[in-house]
Amino acid sequence: MVGLGPAGRPWLTPEAQDALATADELVGYGPYLDRVPPNPRQRRHPTDNREEARRAVHALELARAGSRVAVVSSGDPGVFAMASAVLEAAAEPRFADVAVRVVPGLTAAQAVASRAGAPLGHDYCVLSLSDLLKPWDVVAARITAAARSDMVLAIYNPASRSRTWQVAAARDLLLEHRAPRTPVVIGRDVGGSAESVRVVTLGELDPAEVDMRCLLVVGSSTTRVVERGGRQVVYTPRRYPA
Amino acid sequence: MVGLGPAGRPWLTPEAQDALATADELVGYGPYLDRVPPNPRQRRHPTDNREEARRAVHALELARAGSRVAVVSSGDPGVFAMASAVLEAAAEPRFADVAVRVVPGLTAAQAVASRAGAPLGHDYCVLSLSDLLKPWDVVAARITAAARSDMVLAIYNPASRSRTWQVAAARDLLLEHRAPRTPVVIGRDVGGSAESVRVVTLGELDPAEVDMRCLLVVGSSTTRVVERGGRQVVYTPRRYPA
Repeated sequence: MVGLGPAGRPWLTPEAQDALATADELVGYGPYLDRVPPNPRQRRHPTDNREEARRAVHALELARAGSRVAVVSSGDPGVFAMASAVLEAAAEPRFADVAVRVVPGLTAAQAVASRAGAPLGHDYCVLSLSDLLKPWDVVAARITAAARSDMVLAIYNPASRSRTWQVAAARDLLLEHRAPRTPVVIGRDVGGSAESVRVVTLGELDPAEVDMRCLLVVGSSTTRVVERGGRQVVYTPRRYPA
Repeated sequence: MVGLGPAGRPWLTPEAQDALATADELVGYGPYLDRVPPNPRQRRHPTDNREEARRAVHALELARAGSRVAVVSSGDPGVFAMASAVLEAAAEPRFADVAVRVVPGLTAAQAVASRAGAPLGHDYCVLSLSDLLKPWDVVAARITAAARSDMVLAIYNPASRSRTWQVAAARDLLLEHRAPRTPVVIGRDVGGSAESVRVVTLGELDPAEVDMRCLLVVGSSTTRVVERGGRQVVYTPRRYPA
């Protein structure tokens, strides 16, 4: 399971480059495979984004038949991505002898944070806002737990075409414990051609501005916004007041 | 602010390689600077690990005088590292014209997780157990919030020579909400020459086994441990039961 990082070659580790270059077969979501330079020696197996379990089994079958297989994820395969799906599928007895390895990658939260400054400089939570794989009451309980204990939140999968009310619901839960002036970073396609990074306040967070290509970072009570070189820089100090 | 990743060149991004190669001056904790290949064109300014604020000001002074300066962090400079310290120091008016940029890196939690499997495959918290920069009651409240809402925890700075009771205290807080058989990954010096990764249970977590070179990952109620190729593999499924 190989992590491509959030975008392009500048964030692709040498370990991942090597794993991709030496694979016989590449398996993954089509647009992610397209980010790997062509190699005529390799076979590619692009799949739809929703077919994680089937993709994992397919990759394991190829490996069991003797191929060196790279299952490609954007970001880090260990963070809301393919590594868990492959390890789950690998529990089938027929795959007991397939060697599996996770090659980590930069994850989107780090990319967005780095563009905004250092909002993840102190304790934080990493949550997926998707309620496709877990009930919304679990999501809500975690948002409330993070908000109450004043942790920064990095929010993956905030919205999609079919999930449109969750950003407003999360914002309203956060506002029960956090001030309306709390900074929120909206990172979209960071590192890609449509990159944008906006800093808004929690009170003004407009769900219409958030789509499936976005990641949100919601500050804590100590997160600061300063003007620097004509843009807003966001950071959370390591020190937390007594 | 340049992230070296948790260890060695395999985890050093091309962007970070480039930032290091084109810097005039390198500033950072001595052992981190030692990980950067020598370059006779560069001046190096190694500092003690505790002098973050002074190191940040020094780097900004060098940059203000016209140098291209790389402040080097292990891992990701945006995660419990130098980026926040530099951005805080940069708020002084005399540094208003210094351009600052964060070059992210893989952080230790990802490295440890990748070696163990995929324990961070679902929602998780990233906490520092150090109470040097924040009061222990804040640490404790966050541990309890994460434990109650059933998130995985990645715990940085679990212990040091002077901080020896925090691991036991954290374990006991976690045990109020989480089963003794919950898996805990103890990663030490991952990627380095003294690498070790051990999987224990929360009930058996022995603080004597945890030192300042360790990072802990504490599973949630859904985190699984499977035997695979003679070792224990830990992963947290993306799906959370209703």
